Amino acid sequence: MPGKIRTAQTVSFDVPASEQPGLHNRWHPDIPSIGSIEPGETVKIECLDWTGGQIGNNDSANDVRDVDLTKIHYLTGPFDIEGAEPGDLLVVNITDVQPFDHTPWGFTGIFAKENGGGFLDEHYPNAAKAIWDFDGIYCSSRHIPGVRFPGLIHPGILGCAPSHEVLAEWNRREGSLVAAGAASHPGKILAQLPNTVNAHAGGADAALAARIAREGARTIPGRPEHGGNVDICNISRGSKTYLPVHVAGAKFSVGDLHFSQGDGEISFCGAIEMAGIISIRFSLIKDGMRSRAVPHPVFLPGEVAPHYGPSRYLTFEGFSVDEHGGQHYMDATVAYRQACLRAIQYLKQFGYSGEQIYLLLSCAPVRGTIAGIVDIPNVCTTLGIPMDVFEFDISIESEPVKRDLGACALTS
Amino acid sequence: MPGKIRTAQTVSFDVPASEQPGLHNRWHPDIPSIGSIEPGETVKIECLDWTGGQIGNNDSANDVRDVDLTKIHYLTGPFDIEGAEPGDLLVVNITDVQPFDHTPWGFTGIFAKENGGGFLDEHYPNAAKAIWDFDGIYCSSRHIPGVRFPGLIHPGILGCAPSHEVLAEWNRREGSLVAAGAASHPGKILAQLPNTVNAHAGGADAALAARIAREGARTIPGRPEHGGNVDICNISRGSKTYLPVHVAGAKFSVGDLHFSQGDGEISFCGAIEMAGIISIRFSLIKDGMRSRAVPHPVFLPGEVAPHYGPSRYLTFEGFSVDEHGGQHYMDATVAYRQACLRAIQYLKQFGYSGEQIYLLLSCAPVRGTIAGIVDIPNVCTTLGIPMDVFEFDISIESEPVKRDLGACALTS
Amino acid sequence: MPGKIRTAQTVSFDVPASEQPGLHNRWHPDIPSIGSIEPGETVKIECLDWTGGQIGNNDSANDVRDVDLTKIHYLTGPFDIEGAEPGDLLVVNITDVQPFDHTPWGFTGIFAKENGGGFLDEHYPNAAKAIWDFDGIYCSSRHIPGVRFPGLIHPGILGCAPSHEVLAEWNRREGSLVAAGAASHPGKILAQLPNTVNAHAGGADAALAARIAREGARTIPGRPEHGGNVDICNISRGSKTYLPVHVAGAKFSVGDLHFSQGDGEISFCGAIEMAGIISIRFSLIKDGMRSRAVPHPVFLPGEVAPHYGPSRYLTFEGFSVDEHGGQHYMDATVAYRQACLRAIQYLKQFGYSGEQIYLLLSCAPVRGTIAGIVDIPNVCTTLGIPMDVFEFDISIESEPVKRDLGACALTS
Amino acid sequence: MPGKIRTAQTVSFDVPASEQPGLHNRWHPDIPSIGSIEPGETVKIECLDWTGGQIGNNDSANDVRDVDLTKIHYLTGPFDIEGAEPGDLLVVNITDVQPFDHTPWGFTGIFAKENGGGFLDEHYPNAAKAIWDFDGIYCSSRHIPGVRFPGLIHPGILGCAPSHEVLAEWNRREGSLVAAGAASHPGKILAQLPNTVNAHAGGADAALAARIAREGARTIPGRPEHGGNVDICNISRGSKTYLPVHVAGAKFSVGDLHFSQGDGEISFCGAIEMAGIISIRFSLIKDGMRSRAVPHPVFLPGEVAPHYGPSRYLTFEGFSVDEHGGQHYMDATVAYRQACLRAIQYLKQFGYSGEQIYLLLSCAPVRGTIAGIVDIPNVCTTLGIPMDVFEFDISIESEPVKRDLGACALTS
Repeated sequence: MPGKIRTAQTVSFDVPASEQPGLHNRWHPDIPSIGSIEPGETVKIECLDWTGGQIGNNDSANDVRDVDLTKIHYLTGPFDIEGAEPGDLLVVNITDVQPFDHTPWGFTGIFAKENGGGFLDEHYPNAAKAIWDFDGIYCSSRHIPGVRFPGLIHPGILGCAPSHEVLAEWNRREGSLVAAGAASHPGKILAQLPNTVNAHAGGADAALAARIAREGARTIPGRPEHGGNVDICNISRGSKTYLPVHVAGAKFSVGDLHFSQGDGEISFCGAIEMAGIISIRFSLIKDGMRSRAVPHPVFLPGEVAPHYGPSRYLTFEGFSVDEHGGQHYMDATVAYRQACLRAIQYLKQFGYSGEQIYLLLSCAPVRGTIAGIVDIPNVCTTLGIPMDVFEFDISIESEPVKRDLGACALTS
Repeated sequence: MPGKIRTAQTVSFDVPASEQPGLHNRWHPDIPSIGSIEPGETVKIECLDWTGGQIGNNDSANDVRDVDLTKIHYLTGPFDIEGAEPGDLLVVNITDVQPFDHTPWGFTGIFAKENGGGFLDEHYPNAAKAIWDFDGIYCSSRHIPGVRFPGLIHPGILGCAPSHEVLAEWNRREGSLVAAGAASHPGKILAQLPNTVNAHAGGADAALAARIAREGARTIPGRPEHGGNVDICNISRGSKTYLPVHVAGAKFSVGDLHFSQGDGEISFCGAIEMAGIISIRFSLIKDGMRSRAVPHPVFLPGEVAPHYGPSRYLTFEGFSVDEHGGQHYMDATVAYRQACLRAIQYLKQFGYSGEQIYLLLSCAPVRGTIAGIVDIPNVCTTLGIPMDVFEFDISIESEPVKRDLGACALTS
Repeated sequence: MPGKIRTAQTVSFDVPASEQPGLHNRWHPDIPSIGSIEPGETVKIECLDWTGGQIGNNDSANDVRDVDLTKIHYLTGPFDIEGAEPGDLLVVNITDVQPFDHTPWGFTGIFAKENGGGFLDEHYPNAAKAIWDFDGIYCSSRHIPGVRFPGLIHPGILGCAPSHEVLAEWNRREGSLVAAGAASHPGKILAQLPNTVNAHAGGADAALAARIAREGARTIPGRPEHGGNVDICNISRGSKTYLPVHVAGAKFSVGDLHFSQGDGEISFCGAIEMAGIISIRFSLIKDGMRSRAVPHPVFLPGEVAPHYGPSRYLTFEGFSVDEHGGQHYMDATVAYRQACLRAIQYLKQFGYSGEQIYLLLSCAPVRGTIAGIVDIPNVCTTLGIPMDVFEFDISIESEPVKRDLGACALTS
Repeated sequence: MPGKIRTAQTVSFDVPASEQPGLHNRWHPDIPSIGSIEPGETVKIECLDWTGGQIGNNDSANDVRDVDLTKIHYLTGPFDIEGAEPGDLLVVNITDVQPFDHTPWGFTGIFAKENGGGFLDEHYPNAAKAIWDFDGIYCSSRHIPGVRFPGLIHPGILGCAPSHEVLAEWNRREGSLVAAGAASHPGKILAQLPNTVNAHAGGADAALAARIAREGARTIPGRPEHGGNVDICNISRGSKTYLPVHVAGAKFSVGDLHFSQGDGEISFCGAIEMAGIISIRFSLIKDGMRSRAVPHPVFLPGEVAPHYGPSRYLTFEGFSVDEHGGQHYMDATVAYRQACLRAIQYLKQFGYSGEQIYLLLSCAPVRGTIAGIVDIPNVCTTLGIPMDVFEFDISIESEPVKRDLGACALTS
């Protein structure tokens, strides 16, 4: 008879993340497993927020400005799934995600251009922050008044450990990018290569930890072979993700929980970041990478999501012509940035600051779509904003009314 | 008492598109208006397919291979909207789009790499074609058996004429791109600059037509100032698009009707292209560009769309790591290409050829999403395929069964 | 190669319905078939409006008041489906429904209590009417200003002919009801038994027509054995209805097209009634009544429907306590009437008359739900109104504003 | 700065419900308030399951058979909402509902015909039970294998206390029903009138408790003046219910939590009944009963719900012809019963017992709709079953396969 769901791993708010052996912040096949889970079993896994607690529930963005980005992405795991072998697909059915009862809040940040940056850092170079209070499935922010919406709660990061071969390939190709760009982009960080500073190898002993620190892949980018930091908001409750298994036991890790996120997560620290508990039911498709032709992660969203009618999305278009009039060739990234800038320009007339909207577009349930990607030289992307998250009318039909909508947290 | 809806412009299937004065294939402020429409009025506007009838309902892709790409995008218009002045917003409420009763079919093509190309032309360089038969709101193809889906029918192109200033800016910036790329990309077409070959200036007299041919902007790219060839499938029945007005009367044109299109329209001739009739109800928001802070097109989708549950979308992830292992920096275009290639690889195991799926992903109601655009160096995009468009089970859970699924039209 | 869809039967607007041999208004196994359709084939079938043209596009409800209810439900058919035998299931996949181009309008009526009546005839005993103009997928009415919505277009009536046995059972059980009620409900019409007045037996010769007139079942009620006048708005485009076959060839008939209907179709002539063309693709499941355990009609709705978010439905509750304070025992009919009356009371404060709202609730896409049917003695039903069909705000949060909203057509 | 949400009332699993002063099981204006809540405040309120713990997580239905139905509906409350006065509307915004961590399960029961009964008790007169295990937002049952679905979690009961006048009216009208039926329905329980047996008046002293026991309205039926036991599954997370206030302070009570419920809750103990915690954010619309024309409860559902595409609902039709061939006049209750019986007949062929499906239809997210309520003498209702809750294919297209699907809990 099934009973209470087992907690496979807890986290502590009293011990630094870097000292908790159930956490790690590198991808490497040799990080010791912290537990074993049977296929068919559902377990609860506790997670810290992605900064390991560096950001406070307060009204200053100094902590965002000064965040130590070598101390991030403390993932919980890795877990062995019994019977998993390379070539299998691990089925990750998320059955719940909840914030901790004692921390019913999250944060969204704009990183300073010189420490983290973001999608619009040319326009918003200074740190800013919004704190979100959770009220059941809803959230609202004293820093962005006038909006309230339910979260499509999800983990930003989930994946199995890479094999040594996969890891070597990651280091090769990201190293190539950095090498190639050193001349053309002096001073620009194109990728984060392995770095021993503040590496956390979980329960590894000193020698192993040192090797993992030297070799281990950084966690910022999602990667096609295993997923990782995909930041896909639809991998929420009810979703099933089919993850390739590269090492015996799969060595699954998860973290970076988000109460809500907009498509793109544009401000980088853009979701509503939180600590919490994720419930996952695991199963295996043996030899699935080959028998199902799935060498890379695939997923099905869940049946449950905030659900607005299609005609309630006010939708902005963005093309690959930049804000300075520069014409780019088929660049969807430039195009999506334009859609974001247009939405900000539009929403400012209701009384928000640009920073408030930049934060909001990062974390509210906005939809980013690739509309047309073949009409040379302009990609067309769209950004749809559900009008129902606002407590006032933002439709074009009615004359906009400027309100006093306060300010987000800024630096001192 | 309202009566039958007025047809503002007809087209002919017997006269070449290039000789019909109600059509044109350039954007230019001086193309003569072909009629006048009152705000509040709904009118029907007939449109040819985007190739002006070059593609036949047959089983050979020779016509796609040999298509004359200087003879495309014969738009119907321009129409004067009474009272429209520069600075206004023209509200384009599409109330219906229908194929002609006598041509209940459309086509999707893969252009040859050397004549048109497409998003995956490195992989699929040869011309191919699928003919789609319309059965009410549904379509199916003898060239891609096993699928059937309702169309989210829409125009690929809609927009108001540019002012002389806007036109000059387009020509400047696209010219700059071509100029800059000439050295680095020898032989590659980066943008289509004004070209007198087969220019069609509607009812302009010879002198005016010659000037329009020299100056007029080509129609392939959508452009932020007016929309144009946006290829946004959600600008379908019930949608309201708010278009900036740049010239007196607005001079609205429309064309390139699609029975259905997938996000991205990846094979370039990728929607289900058709001739047909669009019904539009026009209205104006006077001075709306300023008073609503809408200098560029914005839209609301309609309430009616094919509607699958979220958990019915089998979703592929694509990152900015290319299919050769190359690492790109924050390139959403590369990332979306990967998601497409993954989906093709997956669906081939059911018996389709790569070309069949490439065509299918171009025109079926697939969703392309920008999931994460800040995790350096990898953008994460997703491609979701509604499983219900297939007549057999394509879920990962069940073992795939290889079927005989015929072939699309190829060249001889 | 598929071509234009065949029209299996036309109708005339110039010849009285009663004289068109392709129509009939009784259910009987011996009405001669008017054509044959192959499984797998899609055909177009033309239909008159349910009154056979008695109601005009004008501003008087006199025609509704004086309607001849013996001259209704002129169905198009019956059609033989090749190979259909008793015990099969006929699969009716509706692929389109359209009004005629030359009659882009429909009507909703309140029948006078003494001639037809309706669900709320105790409250609204007088005839009234609203004319709806079609603008593509949308409709609006000069008689009910302030609303505009897309139609979930559908046939009110579809079914196969009864066998002689089924027909006898219908006549038996409805006769029993009338017989039992004669004493207790003097003067009340409890059911419409066979009646020769204005019976229309299609192409039957005189002798057969006389027999059909004596025996044939009337068309008002839907019946479990074959469906018939089900008035289910979700049997719209894309739907598949599985109909039991009772006679060789199935003898399928269809009619009573509705541009839109609310759940319940409460004013009896309550949908937006129209003439038009329905496209149907037929197929068979041989022996399906037994092999699928489907002795009665079952259906799947289509993927395409007006689609409002769930939180956009303002929802009224109705219990089985009547408007005079009378307590009924588990009566869902009484309960739904209360929900309707509550909605009318609510919407009147915006300036509508009761008749206008009664008409609107009959035809707009409102949802009627059986919420709880076990809590003795009160059934709980709900009526949900999509707020987005109104051009002004009807939410409870904002103070209601009374507008001048005209009047529906009344009698003179 | 908002913090942790306050728990306004706890419940105990160790003390009998009848002895907990924070609970009560009668509606009466004089039950003492157990606390005060400010408008704008969100609070958590704990609730027992509706039987106060009489049903166990085991494999016997004896407890359902022997349930003491005088010991039910222990509601938590009443709460005073500060400032509420008669005539106001209390806005009840449910922001979350969760089972207790220590009781991650619920039950669905078929009551024996002689002790409780249900909608189909003529067909299923014996007690039966299914236990549901909760796995995050999903549930599954060892007693009904092959199904798994997310809950649209909600309270069955919510309402404000009646005034003395309202209470008197309830007692009058339900007494009239009982009085009128005594002759015609000997032995049948038509309504539950006030009854002192096991009445629980919360914290009332002995004299007051005795009066409340004599006068207090029973909780089984929902009632139009205040809602109460409405069993509306859409009053779930995110919903806003506008409740009339009849007494100073409103005296709001809530209970009877359901993890999931089908429309109709047909087996009476038919939802997935559970103990748990509901979070509610209260606000007031002063004088709203008059100023908004809302004398009875109205609600908006939430944005978040299990969301299946419309074409995924296999839908059964039911008319007011009973299963014995009896013809009823416009009886929606009879009609809905037929739709239920058809669905059971259909699903049995996959290997379920009738009792298993009866339980399943009571609690799964099935949709019960009033389709046509004017076609004399037959009401048409529909019952839609989302096919995606089954782990195997239940569509009509494929031949049904009979499986071993075990049994629900029965009596010994």
